[in-house]
Amino acid sequence: MLPTIAWKDDRVVIIDQRRLPLEEVYVECRRLEEVAEAIEKMVIRGAPAIGVAAAFGLVLSVSSVKPGEDAGRRFEEAAERLARTRPTARNLFWALERMRKVVAEAKAFPLDALKERLLKEALAMEKEDIETNRLIGRNGKELIKDGDSVLTHCNAGGLATAGYGTAIGIIRAAHEEGKKIHVFVDETRPFLQGSRLTAWELDRLGIPLTLITDSTAGWLMKKGEINLTITGADRIARNGDAANKIGTYSIALLARHHRLPFYVAAPLSTFDFSLESGDGIPIEERPAEEVRQAGGCPITLPHIKVRNPAFDVVPGRLITAIISERGIARPPYRRSLAAWDDRGKRP
Amino acid sequence: MLPTIAWKDDRVVIIDQRRLPLEEVYVECRRLEEVAEAIEKMVIRGAPAIGVAAAFGLVLSVSSVKPGEDAGRRFEEAAERLARTRPTARNLFWALERMRKVVAEAKAFPLDALKERLLKEALAMEKEDIETNRLIGRNGKELIKDGDSVLTHCNAGGLATAGYGTAIGIIRAAHEEGKKIHVFVDETRPFLQGSRLTAWELDRLGIPLTLITDSTAGWLMKKGEINLTITGADRIARNGDAANKIGTYSIALLARHHRLPFYVAAPLSTFDFSLESGDGIPIEERPAEEVRQAGGCPITLPHIKVRNPAFDVVPGRLITAIISERGIARPPYRRSLAAWDDRGKRP
Repeated sequence: MLPTIAWKDDRVVIIDQRRLPLEEVYVECRRLEEVAEAIEKMVIRGAPAIGVAAAFGLVLSVSSVKPGEDAGRRFEEAAERLARTRPTARNLFWALERMRKVVAEAKAFPLDALKERLLKEALAMEKEDIETNRLIGRNGKELIKDGDSVLTHCNAGGLATAGYGTAIGIIRAAHEEGKKIHVFVDETRPFLQGSRLTAWELDRLGIPLTLITDSTAGWLMKKGEINLTITGADRIARNGDAANKIGTYSIALLARHHRLPFYVAAPLSTFDFSLESGDGIPIEERPAEEVRQAGGCPITLPHIKVRNPAFDVVPGRLITAIISERGIARPPYRRSLAAWDDRGKRP
Repeated sequence: MLPTIAWKDDRVVIIDQRRLPLEEVYVECRRLEEVAEAIEKMVIRGAPAIGVAAAFGLVLSVSSVKPGEDAGRRFEEAAERLARTRPTARNLFWALERMRKVVAEAKAFPLDALKERLLKEALAMEKEDIETNRLIGRNGKELIKDGDSVLTHCNAGGLATAGYGTAIGIIRAAHEEGKKIHVFVDETRPFLQGSRLTAWELDRLGIPLTLITDSTAGWLMKKGEINLTITGADRIARNGDAANKIGTYSIALLARHHRLPFYVAAPLSTFDFSLESGDGIPIEERPAEEVRQAGGCPITLPHIKVRNPAFDVVPGRLITAIISERGIARPPYRRSLAAWDDRGKRP
């Protein structure tokens, strides 16, 4: 299991994903602000992993409350700080809402009991995330046939989650039952989650892979070398529109043109049932510096203007199926995803 | 004018495009082998520039022939060495053939006269290349409207040619007549010709530009921020199929989906009228190391397997028009390009 994030001795321990795979360095966060910055600077990234990190961050925020201080207010300020870190991933807001419920229910409790309840909830979310990923893997593995070459973009692996992975979880599950699978890994500029993280994960898991530049995928589809694509998602609307790493939209279009399946794997915590369509998903624009360098080396002049949207939105009509812990949903998504909408079903 | 390549004091002087834009360093080649390696290692790249470099290389090969040696044989060995450097760009082979004709015609000449004839031909090719580019610019500038945002991929500018540029030549010509143009520059992994070379050139020319990762272009098309695409080409077949930098195929498909024009600009020396279609174009696979690093920094583990095709082929049916020094050709290309096929017309 990859050590993406862990709670240890009242600290949040995070593997520094900016430095992988060349260095395995861990960052220890003792304060909420450190967790917020770790999310902003992509020490930790990947929608489900961000959700778990935010939950642990909220535990830290209340841990430092002194007797007599307003824990509820401190918690709310922390939640607002975290909400400003990265706008696109639904899981972040899902985690904040889930932790808010704990505070609402435990308001009359003494401070220690509140802390304990929050930590219990965050640890449960971490554990559930891994279980959820395994279910996604189990549900999705039938979509990969023995001998398939699978394209993936960015990192939807153990490092993007509390462990196991979503898109990579499906590939792992298929690999674990003995299917021969080959993975084409898009390097995923500018942050290089493919070459740095996915290649490293698959290599450790013994799953054969070939690294390519993002521009190469379309040509390999044309040459018949790719059989299907699976990616993760950062936010999915009711109609199946799915925000994911910049470039996913293009891959989905290229897959459609070449009549290849394009699958999205994500836990329910990624679904935003309040959104009719992907038009409402906020797209984060990240610093220009990420594009002006690559792997730490400057690659252009420092004053060159840059556009760096971190995500794009794949229209639901381009998605062959969406796989969650509940099963496989197919178009029309407005109907199939409605079955997964638990709003109103739970208290 | 950018100092891509020049003949100076019996040497070929080449700006080292691997080190641009952070350093402006020149490489001086005194021997054929140095020119061959400069092409292989992409000290100089871009189909028309490679053609001119090869011509100068052949001058060097004959310059070192001693009295009594077989100049014709030395020339032929040099041509064969150059032919092995990079297989895709048609201009390389066009230059070798053109220089071969000079040798064939001047066989009976004394060695000094042969050298002089070869140098004269190479210098003529350099000069013609710039004139040709200006004609391409003049022919193509009508395709860009005032206020257009133009996407380009790789570098088809002054650095890819003896000067001025093909795709960038058209953008320059439109800019020079006062049109307000904005250029989106694909960074063009793995060699980063976009962020390193095209951004630098446009910046020097005062043409507004925005640098993006290769994955971002499709999304900007969807958002309506791109009006048209112009790229260069490395080899064009009789049916309009055009080999160009890896990723061009995907861009052409994305442009078609978004109903945006996709133009290719290239001199006649890029056309391979011996080929029925792009299926016959050899696609160079370059070293894995280019993908395992970016801008000189390692970005993945050294044993990760890589696929690194340097080019792909855009089917003619996806190309809105092809612009050469002769004018603008439109589909069906089998007919429109036939008018540019001079085989049999000249001796």
